[in-house]
Amino acid sequence: MRKPKVLAFDVFGTVVNWHGSITAEIKRIQLPVDPNAFASAWRKGYQPAMARVRSGELPWTKIDDLHRMILDQILNTFGISSLSEDEKYELNRIWHRLKPWSDTIEGLTLLKQQFTIVTLSNGNLGLLANMAKHASLPWDLILSAEVFRHYKPDPETYLGVANTFDLPPEDVMLVASHKDDLLAAHQCGLQTAFIERPFEFGPDHTRNDLHQETFTNYHAKNFIDLAQQLQQSSQ
Amino acid sequence: MRKPKVLAFDVFGTVVNWHGSITAEIKRIQLPVDPNAFASAWRKGYQPAMARVRSGELPWTKIDDLHRMILDQILNTFGISSLSEDEKYELNRIWHRLKPWSDTIEGLTLLKQQFTIVTLSNGNLGLLANMAKHASLPWDLILSAEVFRHYKPDPETYLGVANTFDLPPEDVMLVASHKDDLLAAHQCGLQTAFIERPFEFGPDHTRNDLHQETFTNYHAKNFIDLAQQLQQSSQ
Repeated sequence: MRKPKVLAFDVFGTVVNWHGSITAEIKRIQLPVDPNAFASAWRKGYQPAMARVRSGELPWTKIDDLHRMILDQILNTFGISSLSEDEKYELNRIWHRLKPWSDTIEGLTLLKQQFTIVTLSNGNLGLLANMAKHASLPWDLILSAEVFRHYKPDPETYLGVANTFDLPPEDVMLVASHKDDLLAAHQCGLQTAFIERPFEFGPDHTRNDLHQETFTNYHAKNFIDLAQQLQQSSQ
Repeated sequence: MRKPKVLAFDVFGTVVNWHGSITAEIKRIQLPVDPNAFASAWRKGYQPAMARVRSGELPWTKIDDLHRMILDQILNTFGISSLSEDEKYELNRIWHRLKPWSDTIEGLTLLKQQFTIVTLSNGNLGLLANMAKHASLPWDLILSAEVFRHYKPDPETYLGVANTFDLPPEDVMLVASHKDDLLAAHQCGLQTAFIERPFEFGPDHTRNDLHQETFTNYHAKNFIDLAQQLQQSSQ
């Protein structure tokens, strides 16, 4: 396979540290819950909520609104009834201010010199734009499930990136820390790069899925490592 | 009216000099036509082509494909039959490499410090991303008619920007050098800024529409002037 032309990045977990950002926010606003349990519960509602959209049970619904539906449920589960509407709106917007991993900015800047770098996230456009502005993420283009009106892992998302740039699928590489995402992209004909993010689910959670897979073209510790591997590649 | 939060920019003519870029390309590839007449004819086909999509006569069609349809027509009109398919593809991609006006980068950089700056262009996402990478345009988000599946001046485009950021329309300002675009945005409740681009249609074409209008909130010589006016505004 030749080198890709466009790198499409998963965002939550791959580019930014959702667990660490949310637990820090929970502590900052002094919400009386276990920050780790609360962050994990919020994220755990994410796949089932998107599944309701993917199945057609819900009409197209932005991640901002899905995050809010899940937040309302878990506030109830955790027995929190003290937040005003404005406070709940602001807490939900923490997803717009997630912090990048320590290698993210340097790695993306290196990769941008060789490739067109874009997002391919289930996050909505406004969320991703606010996050990029807040964290200085140097995207060439922000692409989202919202553009394709399909959530990953629907094929319309991966093929949508190729179509956006009028390229065959093999000229696009998905970069992600989640193997289900990479497998779906691989099945659509994209190249794939796995990024180890051992602390994605928090410092106390041990990931057992960091081994190399046959369906990934690259396996990197972080974005700087990926940039070096791609630079050295003779493909 | 308070200051806007998001500035949405028309692109062709407002941010980049399509006439000068296309005439330069025609000269570079030594196409045996009058460069001014050819560039003007190409652009003149643009509104009628989009009108066919807006009316439903054509299904959703990207600007890249509309530009190509028009190019094939005008090559015929100008009696050019010497170009290969690859040469026609490359010529059509000149729209991805249009050059910014001399104030564009400095002005956008100033405005980005105060506001979220986005495109709102009829150009497709791939075109706008390639243009931004080629010309170092510092967008916070690239929005396109392609996202909303409606061409300007359909209201879905202007209101789509506000909806993307979960803002009321008056928190968004359209920045454009075309009054029909600004009037349509004004009618949707957006704020508006007119930018004089006296040479948009070439150095030999005199524009008669550079006067102040009642439906524009700002009237600026260029983006640097707009940044200064917004900085001084006590709104």
